[in-house]
Amino acid sequence: MINRLWQITEFPFQPARLQHFETILAIGNGYLSARAAFEEGHAGETPATLVHGIFNHAPGMAVPELAVAPNWLPLRVTVDGTAFSMKTEACDYLRPAGGVMLGYRRTLHMDTASLRREVLFRAESGSTVRLEFERFTSLDQPHILGQRLMVTALDGAPTVGIEVAFDRRDSNNSDHWRNVIAAADADQMTYSAATSQSGYRIAFASRLIAPACVEAGADEHRATLATTVRLEGGSSVTVDKLTAIYTSRDVEDPLQSATVALKDAAADAYDALYEQHCRRWREAWDSCDIEIEGDDSAQLALRFAAYHLLIAAPRQDDDVSIGARTLSGMGYKGHVFWDTELFALPPLTLTQPTIARNLLTYRYKRLAGARQKAEAQGYAGALFPWESTDTGLETTPQWSDPQPDGSRIRIWTGDTEQHICSDIAYAALQYWRWTGDDAFMLAMGAELVLDTAVFWGERVEAKNGRYEISRQIGPDEYHENIDNSVFTNRLVQWHLQQALALLEWLRVNAPDVARRLVAELELREARLAHWRDIAARMVIPFDSERQLHIQFDGFFDLEYVPVLDYQPRVGGIWHMLGHERALRSQVIKQADVVMLMALLGEEVGPREVMLNNFKTYYPRTDHGSSLSPAIHAWVAARLGLDDIAYEMFAQAASTDLENNQGNVADGIHAAACGGLWQAALFGFCGLHLTEDGPQVDPKLPAHWRRVSFSVTYRGEKHHFDVANPAV
Amino acid sequence: MINRLWQITEFPFQPARLQHFETILAIGNGYLSARAAFEEGHAGETPATLVHGIFNHAPGMAVPELAVAPNWLPLRVTVDGTAFSMKTEACDYLRPAGGVMLGYRRTLHMDTASLRREVLFRAESGSTVRLEFERFTSLDQPHILGQRLMVTALDGAPTVGIEVAFDRRDSNNSDHWRNVIAAADADQMTYSAATSQSGYRIAFASRLIAPACVEAGADEHRATLATTVRLEGGSSVTVDKLTAIYTSRDVEDPLQSATVALKDAAADAYDALYEQHCRRWREAWDSCDIEIEGDDSAQLALRFAAYHLLIAAPRQDDDVSIGARTLSGMGYKGHVFWDTELFALPPLTLTQPTIARNLLTYRYKRLAGARQKAEAQGYAGALFPWESTDTGLETTPQWSDPQPDGSRIRIWTGDTEQHICSDIAYAALQYWRWTGDDAFMLAMGAELVLDTAVFWGERVEAKNGRYEISRQIGPDEYHENIDNSVFTNRLVQWHLQQALALLEWLRVNAPDVARRLVAELELREARLAHWRDIAARMVIPFDSERQLHIQFDGFFDLEYVPVLDYQPRVGGIWHMLGHERALRSQVIKQADVVMLMALLGEEVGPREVMLNNFKTYYPRTDHGSSLSPAIHAWVAARLGLDDIAYEMFAQAASTDLENNQGNVADGIHAAACGGLWQAALFGFCGLHLTEDGPQVDPKLPAHWRRVSFSVTYRGEKHHFDVANPAV
Repeated sequence: MINRLWQITEFPFQPARLQHFETILAIGNGYLSARAAFEEGHAGETPATLVHGIFNHAPGMAVPELAVAPNWLPLRVTVDGTAFSMKTEACDYLRPAGGVMLGYRRTLHMDTASLRREVLFRAESGSTVRLEFERFTSLDQPHILGQRLMVTALDGAPTVGIEVAFDRRDSNNSDHWRNVIAAADADQMTYSAATSQSGYRIAFASRLIAPACVEAGADEHRATLATTVRLEGGSSVTVDKLTAIYTSRDVEDPLQSATVALKDAAADAYDALYEQHCRRWREAWDSCDIEIEGDDSAQLALRFAAYHLLIAAPRQDDDVSIGARTLSGMGYKGHVFWDTELFALPPLTLTQPTIARNLLTYRYKRLAGARQKAEAQGYAGALFPWESTDTGLETTPQWSDPQPDGSRIRIWTGDTEQHICSDIAYAALQYWRWTGDDAFMLAMGAELVLDTAVFWGERVEAKNGRYEISRQIGPDEYHENIDNSVFTNRLVQWHLQQALALLEWLRVNAPDVARRLVAELELREARLAHWRDIAARMVIPFDSERQLHIQFDGFFDLEYVPVLDYQPRVGGIWHMLGHERALRSQVIKQADVVMLMALLGEEVGPREVMLNNFKTYYPRTDHGSSLSPAIHAWVAARLGLDDIAYEMFAQAASTDLENNQGNVADGIHAAACGGLWQAALFGFCGLHLTEDGPQVDPKLPAHWRRVSFSVTYRGEKHHFDVANPAV
Repeated sequence: MINRLWQITEFPFQPARLQHFETILAIGNGYLSARAAFEEGHAGETPATLVHGIFNHAPGMAVPELAVAPNWLPLRVTVDGTAFSMKTEACDYLRPAGGVMLGYRRTLHMDTASLRREVLFRAESGSTVRLEFERFTSLDQPHILGQRLMVTALDGAPTVGIEVAFDRRDSNNSDHWRNVIAAADADQMTYSAATSQSGYRIAFASRLIAPACVEAGADEHRATLATTVRLEGGSSVTVDKLTAIYTSRDVEDPLQSATVALKDAAADAYDALYEQHCRRWREAWDSCDIEIEGDDSAQLALRFAAYHLLIAAPRQDDDVSIGARTLSGMGYKGHVFWDTELFALPPLTLTQPTIARNLLTYRYKRLAGARQKAEAQGYAGALFPWESTDTGLETTPQWSDPQPDGSRIRIWTGDTEQHICSDIAYAALQYWRWTGDDAFMLAMGAELVLDTAVFWGERVEAKNGRYEISRQIGPDEYHENIDNSVFTNRLVQWHLQQALALLEWLRVNAPDVARRLVAELELREARLAHWRDIAARMVIPFDSERQLHIQFDGFFDLEYVPVLDYQPRVGGIWHMLGHERALRSQVIKQADVVMLMALLGEEVGPREVMLNNFKTYYPRTDHGSSLSPAIHAWVAARLGLDDIAYEMFAQAASTDLENNQGNVADGIHAAACGGLWQAALFGFCGLHLTEDGPQVDPKLPAHWRRVSFSVTYRGEKHHFDVANPAV
């Protein structure tokens, strides 16, 4: 019972939600994630194991993507010669032709990141078996993947055949892999391949540990290990499959390393490996878990969100980052967006700061790409790509996939959604302040903050004695290439102020670093004076009569559409209005001015202005992005708009679990996960991090009785137990 | 937010669960219930309004059934000429041929027993409207049914057509109705019909209240009222449809009464009717609601269970009872089983005693049928039918519907499942003790208890100086026509003891009644002495070595099947084993010995025996009946088997909400609803009703923080607030 709110269960089998469950029940360990495809395969499945950093630009694709790794899951069972499958219909249930599945339950155990499936299966012979599958990807030894199958004969004395395989036909669902070599001997089977363009090499080695003789087979297409067991009625057999994986990102010779790692792992045996894995997860949850009393669905959703951040977050690798859809699906091709810095990173900064540092280091290591992009547009400094992969180059496609009418839509975000620069600077500064990690700031963070400031100093346009920024896309991507995005302008103003202050700090506390950066980034006094001038005279669109910010120049001249009336809609209102009209309307994709209020809080303006902003923009917002509801929940909670806050929180909470945008087959929404955490802690609990340490100022939903959580602030763990006085 | 755990929501539309939602979102008022079919109809729907007591034996049917009433729901909308439907696909979403539904949410509000549906619909013209449907069946005026539709023009200025209708094609899904007459004038449309065999007459009168002109139409098939409104962009129109219903069970002239009632209701207007309805529901919940802290899903499930009991329970009518599937589906044809007395009745006895009395009066009024059944088998006294309808005659079919192989299976329950007699006596005595309603006992209850005892006194067989009962079916219906069912024998023993004690009580407290019953039921001293002898020497199968009860003679000689190993099964294990083998195995359908322990508690034996019984029978039980899990939860909780208790409770809680037996399309499982209430109160809270009043002895699940509830005991309301000291 203790695990009641730590599990996601599918019972009975729901084939209509096959791909949804593949995503939400994914397991992973920060090195890779595996979608919850079945060991034996299934019609309509989309199995995918994605390994951090293994991008490839296959022939004919517009942009590179994470290459779906060879499938390490296959484990096929026959019972008296009938191949086990999840077929649920039969003419004769006592002697079912082709067999029949009589029962099914699958559970993701979030506490241990393990996936279990129990199945009752009857073969044509009438023999009935229970199959119990388990899998995990070790958090303790991230190159080791474990699978276990227990077969119990319930009825009859069946002959059970078990085969594990690497098969090109299972493993190549795109044109990413070349030089495939499969091999098998009695000890192990191996599979290696290389990506076609980027040349990453990957290698797997697997062993089948069974109480009976294991036979190996291999041909051009596949390698197999197989065993056969005859069961007495009522008896069981357990087989384990251990797999080791390495890539050329890890070692020089992945196949050799996989073989060695497999041998070491097999010496430990499954149970020991699993126990070490579980111990690591206990440690992880000890720092991350938020406990809620009084709202089971919120509790489950927050755990689910933390779980998916944790399995996607690179623990040992500072040269990769978390894609918008984590490693759990092919949405956005594994590319990294601002989702990472402003949504996924804050929870990690406060609970797993070493991971947060890895993510920021990923950006630091890609400053060259960002400088190249700025230079290509004629500017100095660093302009990070809107979509980022391994190379650090801009990988946003320029055109959409074909629309229903066959046309393609120009995608401008890679050209003009430039607030990503300030988002990264914001995250670096936040990380520094919350962790006190001066070493990071001196080695990497300062350069990130300052060189992106250099870009803005050049990019900003002087006009009529003020500074403006034209042709931008703010968070609201329904409005492209607009002028004076208040989100962007205000954040750039803040960014330049912060950059100036940081440089002062460096001059006092690390003069060598200050000197080096001034020299390398050419931070001449004229440049700094220009920054000061921009910060003082930046255009911040504001309606002084109505006392509210104007999202961008001319926003209120567009057609007004009462978005709240379009409830309960399935899918975005954008699709209902059509592309042309949506662009010409006040419909906002997602938190934009509201996002600014989340980031800068009271600095945006007095409470009256904040309220005016919220009440103006909330009813115009489509929440067409999964990034939106949680941010609205957070800001609404701080403004005391309790009902809206909880409604938005609930919407964010159901993004992936309920698939309320219909696209979870493509992967978990990383930003919704991180946003939910922030809504709970920064919104409802009012967590704020000051020089005096973390403080709370709770505005809990009326039915929440208590929230308890821990954050690590400047190296010290602080525990909070926030009770709701109203309950 | 306050209604968070008072609602069942469907979002978005789930066509695959159409019939499941039709059942669980049903509304009702104790006079009738209406499945949650849509106003405009839908492919694959099973709309049904069932009215208490309107049984009919149509030509060609094996047994009578509740006749599905004429459909009063139709309310069809056109937008710019496009008929509104829940079509979700379109080629062109801006100008969708045939229209398209762009959004959907439906919510059952259990606090007010009202069903709301919100839909976004776009017509071929491109006009987009929001439709908000609401319906309720008045708890205050049970003959009045209300529907409301609000149409809001979101886009465009559409012409909206609204038509309500009674249509033979909507209303006759079986061969039950004759003499159909449809009529309409400007004020109202009416529809009347009579059942083909039983001759019940039913009549509806409906009025459409709209801001524009209403036109009436009628032909042989249908009566209609229609109106047309042109909406400005952004504006709304609201129309109300009020319907009155009477049957010849209520009044002599149903059509006349419906017309008068409709006129009166229309004078009140929808809002006032709805407010009165809600006030009645507030009163009902005030006496019934159980509040749980620490388990939202248990909270929701308990409310859901109480809701479905309340909408099915006859409030004004003591000549009808609650069918096994309530009034929410056609399962078991509306027939009344022991489910009512032992599962649904105890919660009502303790919260709505007048309803409980109605249900017992239903049985009292059918003593003639019970005596007829006993007599047909050659016995005196009353043998109640296993399945009961309006007539009080046995209506169990003798043969099943055809099996997959075309064969039919003999159904023996109508012949030999005779414990129903003692179940009814048990319920009558329980009602009397808990309410102190001596008037009921004198007028009706005593005769129920004593005349069923008369039957048993004759039915029991003397053998070798002991008394036995052969050829019975206990609650475990997998074993038919077995000898010495311990459940039945022990309950009969108890029943005769209670009958003797009751007669003593009558002789002291109501000698006239005692004299009358002694005379009428021929309770001669010899008969009473025989009862005493039976009670003293009844065979109660018991294994004294293993210290446990034997379910029936020879039970342990049957094949043992480890039922717990057959997890996670979908559907009963019975189907997996096949009929023949199941009959010859120890697989138990449902709580049988465990049911006896629930009913008689410590009287069954010392704790050691109770534990032995539970540990023996629980692993042999299939829970192939929805009556089983809650009873196991109750008994396990009392025995301190906490994990099993909660697991069984959770299984009972998901019976209807999760459709975990796959048959909710046929209606709500009334017994699971009542069982869940009993598991929570008698099991977890340890509620017991003694001469000193109600007491609790909590064994709450570890994560339940608090349970609060009220019971009415002997006319006095007692409130309990049970805290879990462990949390």
